[in-house]
Amino acid sequence: MTQLPAYQELARRHLRMHRLGHLQSIAHWDRSANMPAKGNEARAAALAEMGGLLHELATAADLPQLLGSAEGEALGDFERASLREMQRAWRASNALPTALVERLSLATSRCEHAWRSQRPANDWAGHAPLLKEVLELVREQATRLSQATGLSPYDALLDQYEPGMRASEVERVFADLKSWLPGLIRDVQARQAGETVIAPQGPFAVDKQRALGRAAMELLGFDFEAGRLDESAHPFCGGVPEDVRMTTRYSEADALPALMGVVHETGHGRYEQNLPREWLGLPVAQARSMGLHESQSLSFEMQLGSHPGFARLLAPLLNRHLGEQPAFAPDNLVKLLTRVKPGYIRVEADEVTYPAHVMLRFEIERRLIDGSMQVEDIPAAWNAQMQQLLGLSTEGNFKDGCMQDVHWPDGLFGYFPCYTLGAMYAAQFFAAMRREMPDLDARIGRGELSAVFDWLQAKVWSQGSLWETPELVRRASGETLNPAHFQAHLRARYLG
Amino acid sequence: MTQLPAYQELARRHLRMHRLGHLQSIAHWDRSANMPAKGNEARAAALAEMGGLLHELATAADLPQLLGSAEGEALGDFERASLREMQRAWRASNALPTALVERLSLATSRCEHAWRSQRPANDWAGHAPLLKEVLELVREQATRLSQATGLSPYDALLDQYEPGMRASEVERVFADLKSWLPGLIRDVQARQAGETVIAPQGPFAVDKQRALGRAAMELLGFDFEAGRLDESAHPFCGGVPEDVRMTTRYSEADALPALMGVVHETGHGRYEQNLPREWLGLPVAQARSMGLHESQSLSFEMQLGSHPGFARLLAPLLNRHLGEQPAFAPDNLVKLLTRVKPGYIRVEADEVTYPAHVMLRFEIERRLIDGSMQVEDIPAAWNAQMQQLLGLSTEGNFKDGCMQDVHWPDGLFGYFPCYTLGAMYAAQFFAAMRREMPDLDARIGRGELSAVFDWLQAKVWSQGSLWETPELVRRASGETLNPAHFQAHLRARYLG
Repeated sequence: MTQLPAYQELARRHLRMHRLGHLQSIAHWDRSANMPAKGNEARAAALAEMGGLLHELATAADLPQLLGSAEGEALGDFERASLREMQRAWRASNALPTALVERLSLATSRCEHAWRSQRPANDWAGHAPLLKEVLELVREQATRLSQATGLSPYDALLDQYEPGMRASEVERVFADLKSWLPGLIRDVQARQAGETVIAPQGPFAVDKQRALGRAAMELLGFDFEAGRLDESAHPFCGGVPEDVRMTTRYSEADALPALMGVVHETGHGRYEQNLPREWLGLPVAQARSMGLHESQSLSFEMQLGSHPGFARLLAPLLNRHLGEQPAFAPDNLVKLLTRVKPGYIRVEADEVTYPAHVMLRFEIERRLIDGSMQVEDIPAAWNAQMQQLLGLSTEGNFKDGCMQDVHWPDGLFGYFPCYTLGAMYAAQFFAAMRREMPDLDARIGRGELSAVFDWLQAKVWSQGSLWETPELVRRASGETLNPAHFQAHLRARYLG
Repeated sequence: MTQLPAYQELARRHLRMHRLGHLQSIAHWDRSANMPAKGNEARAAALAEMGGLLHELATAADLPQLLGSAEGEALGDFERASLREMQRAWRASNALPTALVERLSLATSRCEHAWRSQRPANDWAGHAPLLKEVLELVREQATRLSQATGLSPYDALLDQYEPGMRASEVERVFADLKSWLPGLIRDVQARQAGETVIAPQGPFAVDKQRALGRAAMELLGFDFEAGRLDESAHPFCGGVPEDVRMTTRYSEADALPALMGVVHETGHGRYEQNLPREWLGLPVAQARSMGLHESQSLSFEMQLGSHPGFARLLAPLLNRHLGEQPAFAPDNLVKLLTRVKPGYIRVEADEVTYPAHVMLRFEIERRLIDGSMQVEDIPAAWNAQMQQLLGLSTEGNFKDGCMQDVHWPDGLFGYFPCYTLGAMYAAQFFAAMRREMPDLDARIGRGELSAVFDWLQAKVWSQGSLWETPELVRRASGETLNPAHFQAHLRARYLG
């Protein structure tokens, strides 16, 4: 066997992890989309075993030496960026012992699986002990990551999803939001109060909604030869870049939530489907961050999905698949899609009230991680924040309150800020697109969506993890994160 | 770390392989049931990587020493049987280099995936080169296994699916079959020639067939909390014992083939769902052999499925799900299910002509493995044997001829004899049941199917791989394989 240069050997190792991780991703998707109840114990054990194995590969004893040797090799710019991402992956893995990774995998499998039936049953008492177990392990994870990185425990978690982002910056951005968002919500609601909006008349059969969702995905350029749409308790986009597995959930009472959920996940799906294929297997080929991932889903769901021009493209699809009705007339559809109304459910929130959902989760999860709040305190804190931010009570209503999301049961603490960061990146990207293409809105209205897709492909999708987030955002839009674009977008769309 | 006794350490290793193998099984099922076309390359690479990894674990350098030490430990009868199966697994794995296992995995992924579109297109010219590649690797596999076991190359393959069985014994059994089967087919056809049989009037919508299939599975005791029914190009029963994944395929023209395919796979499914749960992860907990596996599917599809008493249970399900029609009257249904008619397709064959399909495959695959026949020779040999055994020509008709089965594209050479061995075991088991329960047929007619299931559970399912096949069969039925029961069964049912 010839001695490979260290960089080549590292690339080979990552390709192996990528291939084994493929099976884990598919089994993870299957667990949510297909798996019958009694399969859970064996699946959890299998996923934990694989999690442990991948962790062993990611922390192999000779990696520090290989990473060090590669540093000294004559690498081009691409290989330098690739090596930087390998180092990042190693640091994150190496901070955690394999046993903790396996225990976390088992605890989140158990908690997530139970959540699926406990949520509809509003069973917080049954859920809390399982979530407690997850939280304790995540706290240990945060402590370990903190020790390895020098970041605070919460920052160390956040850094996994949005590398380089800090809670202090999130706080600064959210403080700004809080200064103008409540007023904006009031103004928009006052303005919309006089509008007549026709509600869709259900029921809408699930198989018709399924066909509608597929039609919307086709309109949005999803490649069905490299992915699928299925159903799960919590919509998500999983699978692998070569085979993207999106899910949604249907309610016969209303077709729009599932449809817009599909539009949202299609943004994730297209990012994955269009990651740089020739580097696949290397960490540098992965999506840059979860904040950027959400910027793509929200570019689709909000920037595009609630755009008056896009509504005119959706209207004929709705009429074709669900039958014509006055609610689906383009002008009314725009009103439906831009209706601002505080509600309980984050994934069904309009883009104006959405940040409130994120802010309350951010405040609660920070305190859960720093230990100043316990699992038992969540419902009361949730209720208080919902009252304060959106004027709604979730007292005793756990299923539409603190049990609505899969994130915490799944061990994802530190993820929620990515949604609002994503909304801000998306607004910033569309502002940049409009500077480059002054006729962008007209083109969207004419169905020339490739104007949007080509821009995102060039600036985001094709870039993988070649740049750190601020640099990617700067190269795409001319400046690093600037929340002013989000405020300007909301004011233009809702009060313009 | 305390030093585990060798047997305990071996059990721990097998549990790990069982858990990782779980992900492989689910991804394998997903490939056939869900995966879009462009996902194949990445999936093939992932499955090959995992195949290689599992092979490395199964051939770890210290296993011979551990197996040797365990031999000397104070083991009970159960642990002795368990150790015997560990040794069998080690021998089979150790005969093959990891690189060959990975190459075979890649070649069969490629060939199987292409077959799915090549078969409907009748594209033998496109298929042959891919099958050639698989065959060459299987020949190498057979040679390696032969060197390790001292068996002939074909016997070494057969031994993987039916441990202890030899081609010479299959030949002896098939020679006996050939002496009376053609005459029996003629006699049955002559007798049935005067019968009036009403054909079902389609089309039958796929969603109705799906519901019918599920109803039949419920009647047969399938646990839907521990398994699913989906669709694939070639029906199979996959997944893991804790989460059985059955598939079928539908034709709107006729509902019975899919229904009886489901009944067949349910036999496999119940065997898997009822394997001894407390030993899961050990080789001794696995199904004894593929011959016994097919004995269960054919116990369901043929012994039970074509039983006049069972037809009376199926009739109301057909009427309920597909609408009443004269064809579904119980007496007519019995005639439909026991109609003997030479046809092209093995999986749709009646139980009388079925062995002919197996015999021709056995003769061809033996010669493919010993090198006296090449891939290019298959269509002519197929046609000649079909003409001779069933009086049908497959000239130019590859899709209903030598391209109809997934086995060879999937690298499964040496498997086909298991179907007819299974039919014989099944007939022998039902003969034993009737000796123990003289009112068995009346009980089936009354819907007391637990009489059958409890017997199979006690004698076959719960036994896993505790005994070698002849011993399991002897303990269940009082004697080792005796083909006379199969002949007696066919004569009683079709000429009685």
